[in-house]
Amino acid sequence: MTIRTVEVICTGNELLLGDTVNTNLAWLGQQVADWGARLGREVCVPDDRNALTEAMRDGLARADLTVVIGGLGPTQDDLTRPVAAAVLGWELAPSPVVAAAIRAFLAGRRLNVPEAAIAAQSEVLEGADVLPNRNGTAPGFWCAVDDRVLVLLPGPPPEFETMVREQVWPRVQPLLEPQFIRAEIQVAGIPESQVATTTESVDLAGLAVGYCAKPERITVRIEAAPKQAATLAAVAARVRAALAPYALPEDAPTLAAAVGQLLQAQDLTLGTAESCTGGGIAAALTDVSGCSTYFLGGVVSYANRWKEAFLGVPGETLAQFGAVSEETVRAMLDGLLAHYGVDCGIAVSGVAGPTGGTAEKPVGMVVVGTAVGSDREIRVFQFRGDRAEVRRRTVFAALGQLRMTLLARTLDLTTINHA
Amino acid sequence: MTIRTVEVICTGNELLLGDTVNTNLAWLGQQVADWGARLGREVCVPDDRNALTEAMRDGLARADLTVVIGGLGPTQDDLTRPVAAAVLGWELAPSPVVAAAIRAFLAGRRLNVPEAAIAAQSEVLEGADVLPNRNGTAPGFWCAVDDRVLVLLPGPPPEFETMVREQVWPRVQPLLEPQFIRAEIQVAGIPESQVATTTESVDLAGLAVGYCAKPERITVRIEAAPKQAATLAAVAARVRAALAPYALPEDAPTLAAAVGQLLQAQDLTLGTAESCTGGGIAAALTDVSGCSTYFLGGVVSYANRWKEAFLGVPGETLAQFGAVSEETVRAMLDGLLAHYGVDCGIAVSGVAGPTGGTAEKPVGMVVVGTAVGSDREIRVFQFRGDRAEVRRRTVFAALGQLRMTLLARTLDLTTINHA
Repeated sequence: MTIRTVEVICTGNELLLGDTVNTNLAWLGQQVADWGARLGREVCVPDDRNALTEAMRDGLARADLTVVIGGLGPTQDDLTRPVAAAVLGWELAPSPVVAAAIRAFLAGRRLNVPEAAIAAQSEVLEGADVLPNRNGTAPGFWCAVDDRVLVLLPGPPPEFETMVREQVWPRVQPLLEPQFIRAEIQVAGIPESQVATTTESVDLAGLAVGYCAKPERITVRIEAAPKQAATLAAVAARVRAALAPYALPEDAPTLAAAVGQLLQAQDLTLGTAESCTGGGIAAALTDVSGCSTYFLGGVVSYANRWKEAFLGVPGETLAQFGAVSEETVRAMLDGLLAHYGVDCGIAVSGVAGPTGGTAEKPVGMVVVGTAVGSDREIRVFQFRGDRAEVRRRTVFAALGQLRMTLLARTLDLTTINHA
Repeated sequence: MTIRTVEVICTGNELLLGDTVNTNLAWLGQQVADWGARLGREVCVPDDRNALTEAMRDGLARADLTVVIGGLGPTQDDLTRPVAAAVLGWELAPSPVVAAAIRAFLAGRRLNVPEAAIAAQSEVLEGADVLPNRNGTAPGFWCAVDDRVLVLLPGPPPEFETMVREQVWPRVQPLLEPQFIRAEIQVAGIPESQVATTTESVDLAGLAVGYCAKPERITVRIEAAPKQAATLAAVAARVRAALAPYALPEDAPTLAAAVGQLLQAQDLTLGTAESCTGGGIAAALTDVSGCSTYFLGGVVSYANRWKEAFLGVPGETLAQFGAVSEETVRAMLDGLLAHYGVDCGIAVSGVAGPTGGTAEKPVGMVVVGTAVGSDREIRVFQFRGDRAEVRRRTVFAALGQLRMTLLARTLDLTTINHA
């Protein structure tokens, strides 16, 4: 058999009630695209025998591979196992091997689970390959029928993702006929229109390009036929070169990681002074493992008296210009570098909303300051969106602004070295 | 006509490629449940004429109300408008009124959009109610056919959510036959099993209860028939009373908001000293609008020398016990309260991973300290999960620990007052 088409069934009342955001779908979509295939369709059904039966029958009728996510737990709500048995016409039988594996998993974690729950999760579909679950109790199943495959996987993301990587992919790979290969380049610091113009000024050798713009970065995606690997690599290299220095490094594809790489390369340390983001910039920087080599710490100066006492912002500056002003942010930066022993700094102050806006300083107005040594850059932004969105965009704007200053230094140094 | 059943179609290659997580589904699921109905099914299809046609036909055949999200933009990928026209047998015609609304929207934002894009988004379905979009350019459509409704809405969440609230709900409400009413109680500080035991010890008057456990909190959901409003209110009040003091206040249903309410009630200020969370606790506290009345600021003491210089942690403490130790966290708390003028404090230090773990201090080990005046509580946690998960759980553990201390003070005061 050959796998060309892939569909997904997600089951669980929690998804349709809005208790859980379906992150499994996006994660699997990326995996399947990396395999060179496309998810053709996803359907989400409640914990209901009829709905699940219909979805499985539809999937088997339409797609070479149908992945069912969820419904393998021990409760009466969990219907994936019995419904698959009925749809496939296969028996369910207790497996002592699976029961032993569940007991071993629980013993290692000192978890106490009723015998009935172990028994329910030890029932296996005769005719299926059992897929072990090393992060949980419910095993998965690989059910090959004629020229189709139905895969059943548990819903909790750590279990689901590990089983796709370790159990499903090795079984899919020999059967898969890839439809395409692709390369992705992450870009930040220029608008989407400029990313497109630059990309399309390159010799693309006829390959298709697409763009996906997010607040943090723009993804350029280049697709080719599976046999065009050399062409794709050459085109991707040309596009990356044309987009330099805005393309994020392949091994640091987020703004926080790219900033970290530049700081390390230039042997500089960084600190933060945050008002409206309340620690969000420091949190983004410390999302990167290994950041302790360049990120020393930060000050969340939410109250004005904190800005005065611990960043040395003069009371007159706050009184005359207000907390959200270029003058205050400049003073926050000066205080950060003077008192905290860092080479570089980020300081922000803004009106995150929903309250606190005025005609002169509306909700969404944010002042972002960055410092590298004695260099200062202070910019005023006006963001749209709710409190969370204004704060998120401020984090990206601040990291992006520092990245540009650090990049400019690299370019200057290169120029000087070459002169 | 009567609306009893609701289904959703999400369209967009970005959802199936994993570029975008489908948050609209969860948001709409919550809304529809608040209306007293259930989402019966969701299907996600690519930007493909055949797939979208089949999904719309299925929806109209099965559900009273089918909501189509996405595909209303101006590009050739955006197929919802022409596919709906074909499925319904309705004409598309340019609307000068819609074109004028789009121009007015763009003029207010100084955005430059090609005439062709305005023309594409001004095409309306004859026979549909046009639903204005005050956050974007693409209008929506309410298409009533026989005893069924097909609603077309744009995909960007700020546009989608506002239009559901302001345009769809007023049209749905008179047609809706609610299936149930429900009450929710958010609980934190006790395990799910204790929440269930406590809830079920109350006279539930035969109403159904369910639980949804998340790292931050456990939701108790009580459902009743629409005519049982008085019974539901009485049962919810009894359950809330039984779960006191662990139930989160109705007007502060997150840990950060509940902590803020307790601090305000006790006229206390708060500061933070964070290592492994890198600002995440301060960021969570400042997610709450109005937090400036009690949250003064924080120190992100990522580097040890920052802990020494700006929190006064003795170098010998760090050398002898390490950064991740009860001793260091206690010193961080002491320094925070002594030097930063706050009444209460949160301090954390831990091994977020993936590197830095040892046999003695493995990845996921986190020390959480909280202080209220001279009271100190220091606890050691061992969390599972990746770096992001360990950091997220630390934020909730820290906020939960401070909440319990603040609650205990209230209870003591009450006891004393009653004595």
